[in-house]
Amino acid sequence: MYKFLNDIEFPSDLRQLSPESLPILAQEARDFILEVLATKPGHLGASLGVMELTIALHYYFDTPQDILVWDVGHQAYGHKLFTGRKNDFETLRQWNGMSGFPVRGESKYDAFGVGHSSTSISAIVGMALANKIQQRNNKHIAVIGDASIVSGMAFEGLNHLGATNLDVLIILNDNNIGIDPAVGALQKHFNAIENQSEEAFFQALGLHYHGVIDGHDFTEILNAFESLEKIKKPKLLHIRTIKGKGYDKAEKDQILWHSPGKFDKITGEILPKSEKLTFPKLVGNSLIEIFKKSEKVVTVTPAMPTGSGLVDLMHFFPERVWDVGIAEQHAVTLSAGLATQGLKPFCVIYSTFLQRAYDQVIHDVALQNLPVVFLIDRAGFVGSDGATHHGYFDISFLNSIPHMVVACPADAAEMQDLLQISLQTNQPFAIRYPKIEILEEDLFSQNTVFGKVKNIQKGKKLAVLSTGYIAQTLKPIVQNLNLSWYHFPFVKPLDIVALEEIFNQYSHIITFENGIENGGFGNSILNFANKNNYKGKIEIVAYPDKFVEHGSNRELDAFVGMDSESVKEKIHNLYFDT
Amino acid sequence: MYKFLNDIEFPSDLRQLSPESLPILAQEARDFILEVLATKPGHLGASLGVMELTIALHYYFDTPQDILVWDVGHQAYGHKLFTGRKNDFETLRQWNGMSGFPVRGESKYDAFGVGHSSTSISAIVGMALANKIQQRNNKHIAVIGDASIVSGMAFEGLNHLGATNLDVLIILNDNNIGIDPAVGALQKHFNAIENQSEEAFFQALGLHYHGVIDGHDFTEILNAFESLEKIKKPKLLHIRTIKGKGYDKAEKDQILWHSPGKFDKITGEILPKSEKLTFPKLVGNSLIEIFKKSEKVVTVTPAMPTGSGLVDLMHFFPERVWDVGIAEQHAVTLSAGLATQGLKPFCVIYSTFLQRAYDQVIHDVALQNLPVVFLIDRAGFVGSDGATHHGYFDISFLNSIPHMVVACPADAAEMQDLLQISLQTNQPFAIRYPKIEILEEDLFSQNTVFGKVKNIQKGKKLAVLSTGYIAQTLKPIVQNLNLSWYHFPFVKPLDIVALEEIFNQYSHIITFENGIENGGFGNSILNFANKNNYKGKIEIVAYPDKFVEHGSNRELDAFVGMDSESVKEKIHNLYFDT
Repeated sequence: MYKFLNDIEFPSDLRQLSPESLPILAQEARDFILEVLATKPGHLGASLGVMELTIALHYYFDTPQDILVWDVGHQAYGHKLFTGRKNDFETLRQWNGMSGFPVRGESKYDAFGVGHSSTSISAIVGMALANKIQQRNNKHIAVIGDASIVSGMAFEGLNHLGATNLDVLIILNDNNIGIDPAVGALQKHFNAIENQSEEAFFQALGLHYHGVIDGHDFTEILNAFESLEKIKKPKLLHIRTIKGKGYDKAEKDQILWHSPGKFDKITGEILPKSEKLTFPKLVGNSLIEIFKKSEKVVTVTPAMPTGSGLVDLMHFFPERVWDVGIAEQHAVTLSAGLATQGLKPFCVIYSTFLQRAYDQVIHDVALQNLPVVFLIDRAGFVGSDGATHHGYFDISFLNSIPHMVVACPADAAEMQDLLQISLQTNQPFAIRYPKIEILEEDLFSQNTVFGKVKNIQKGKKLAVLSTGYIAQTLKPIVQNLNLSWYHFPFVKPLDIVALEEIFNQYSHIITFENGIENGGFGNSILNFANKNNYKGKIEIVAYPDKFVEHGSNRELDAFVGMDSESVKEKIHNLYFDT
Repeated sequence: MYKFLNDIEFPSDLRQLSPESLPILAQEARDFILEVLATKPGHLGASLGVMELTIALHYYFDTPQDILVWDVGHQAYGHKLFTGRKNDFETLRQWNGMSGFPVRGESKYDAFGVGHSSTSISAIVGMALANKIQQRNNKHIAVIGDASIVSGMAFEGLNHLGATNLDVLIILNDNNIGIDPAVGALQKHFNAIENQSEEAFFQALGLHYHGVIDGHDFTEILNAFESLEKIKKPKLLHIRTIKGKGYDKAEKDQILWHSPGKFDKITGEILPKSEKLTFPKLVGNSLIEIFKKSEKVVTVTPAMPTGSGLVDLMHFFPERVWDVGIAEQHAVTLSAGLATQGLKPFCVIYSTFLQRAYDQVIHDVALQNLPVVFLIDRAGFVGSDGATHHGYFDISFLNSIPHMVVACPADAAEMQDLLQISLQTNQPFAIRYPKIEILEEDLFSQNTVFGKVKNIQKGKKLAVLSTGYIAQTLKPIVQNLNLSWYHFPFVKPLDIVALEEIFNQYSHIITFENGIENGGFGNSILNFANKNNYKGKIEIVAYPDKFVEHGSNRELDAFVGMDSESVKEKIHNLYFDT
């Protein structure tokens, strides 16, 4: 089927080709990836955009001795294709299958595991320093996009690199977009045809600057590599590429085709996605209503307006919604600054990326007791993105912070109640929710009251205590059993009045949450039970002390013993033990 | 005594003075601060260095309507002096006294609470955006040092600011030093006499650049303010100052006089500091020995070589120790990069600043199971620096991370044992220790074994379980009682074999740690006890769910019920309850 691709397993095969063959190989590789991704959903646009660069890198450099680090990594499908994993693509992003990101354990060509943005420069500088003092003379290359290089972490890496004499090549893959269009002051220069300003910027950071070149032209790329090889100091090659290159539809709607889901490769028709309401969509819609009612409300997103459901909100209220780019630290402290002037900021951020701003949450928001509302998206498992992206730790790391409210909605009604409650409170307030479809019917009839538990049903001896969307799994299991169910919209503050009653009434308690056990909801219950000298049995069901890879959420839930079957078994075991 | 200072309570008083009086006032204010700090230790050099700037800011701008944010804040003593707090200086950094940093609760002139570096730009941008949409036309100014402006977080703020049309003034206070000399590529330009390069850097970020001017010349400063007032867009004023200005000794040894402790104002003699060994000193000395034995060992510090006891190590091994500046995120991922190439990196970082790199610890080190050793200094209370700087949360936020070892030494021998054990293990390894003097005699005779508890003494019914330096408080209390004492050098992994025995033997358990309760050591014990169906009594002694201000460590320990008296009472209560 393919003229060149069939014979290429590893970069050593690729290096046998003539330079003239490379454009054909690039097209074949694009075809291959399109073929796979039409039925195995993944990140499409980014990998299409860097196909020439990927081939040129493995063609010119002696990987894996020469070290290549991809920033973020969702552009590395071509890299995987040429490094011994062609046959693994059928398992892409599936349970026990190939990861959607470079992973050290998967291949020696994956020099550094990635997923979050802007880590590549720090990593490659560390590698280059290590190899220098060990007198190795291999080369070091990092590829980073224009949306990622302006993150603070990347800047810290550049500022260190530029002060060294390391022979490190940074390739700035400038396609003017991350997942959403890239933003920020520096970005304006990246877009300009005249680029003296960005050259001056990188030179001020001590880097030799080369560019801009066409990142889809093999001759330009290979010539640049050759010319830069003579510069034995930190250097930056600026290439311009088109995200989705070579596939017309993907070039034209880059946001949609970043990660399109299943599609028809020939017609370019994207298979209809579910129209069902998800938590992020609900949040976006609810914020529009909230914005209409109050001029004091504002929103900050670090580079995730589409993913977080904020596109319509931005459209209607451009003066009160700020996309600050991949800058989580700034997003949180910006929100703190907004709050000091009497506004009510909603800082909308993925759980896994909030880890980037942990200090800002503690030091700038919580310590000052500022009324910033954190809308924490992608809580719990995120499926096929895997270990780098699960919202695994947030309940625990927020639960430890004084002044912080930690709330976990179970359904649409509770989500909306929590948004309203957050508007009425005057302290840091975190609401964490998953990217899952919302059940059409609300789970509970009770209204949500600040700091109060909901007693969903009453029964004997055994009490089920839950927080968050695990309630959706629990409902069909518990509703036919003679047990009690208490649902906690709030992990913090805990409803200790209700808990004291619960400790008095039940000999057995089982807790459920979609988050890590240590420091989480169940631990808080246990801690309070201990202070109350509760002597019954408590079982905590939560995520275990291990990293969990990619798969469907159902598979991941099963892996950690929290799918419907496992939950049922755990409840039945306790139920028949009472 | 003072010609002008006596009559100045607030900036409105200051504005009554003629411009010619200002230099005299500056000298009087320096005298005042020197007088106070000679006996009430605090941050000296930074506040002396910005005295003219401080006066000029309050003289020219209409504070507090015009908003002034100080980055870090240890340069804000002059600011406090002129904003109604002259009489509070006697209580500086003392329990219930005036904070060493700006704090919103202390004065309306303290627009944003600070302590950690590089937050000011994000905060002022948030304030300016908020006031713009509320149609206020007050002015917004942030003052940030050259060591702080190169931190990633500040860059994120600048990159956002430069893309706006906000009338915000950033003042870059360039004195070529943070606590230690400032580093990094950009820093090289700050030092150059020709500064086109840094002008280009800030212009690339969309800022109007003005400078460099002499930050000790009132005329230059006030003229610059006037000239910049016409520029209604983001702008940066670059001033050059001398840290310690006006006090000869402090100008000459800027590191020593950053925070000199008590001194004789006339002679400039610094009162002798204790020669006793502290944990940071011990770590520095131990690393020298470790470096001598292995060429694979390297060290990374984010701007804290002096504070972390690494000055001699850097002197002896300049090729293997890197001070990366205020760049905690980079420091951690740099360490990860170093580890991938077969080196053993020690990443030495204050507990409170590790919060800045939480995602990097999880995503770049732990997920990849890389053998980075985190030497976490300033664990527990740090005394007079207060709420922004206590090492309060680290046990909890590290305890949740898979693959991570969490170790807490109690004395010199245990610290050294842990360093050796960390060399022999091949996984992420955190050792957290306080900045306190180490007892001359070791507490325990047992050697430290990976993952194993030390049974210090055997007694009846009650078991005391401890981790870390609280053991120093515990020893004189428990050694005369008929109880058992188990000391845990490792919070994670827990010695579950020993714990199962402990649960079998004792009806009462009390745990001690210098860290927050939620998710900490005691919680881990409780959690495991619960899984083992332990039915005895467990009391957890740890930090409460609140922010704790400044004071002596003794006062802070008393406040949280962990000083010697409180610990004794808690143990006795349980002891006589058995």
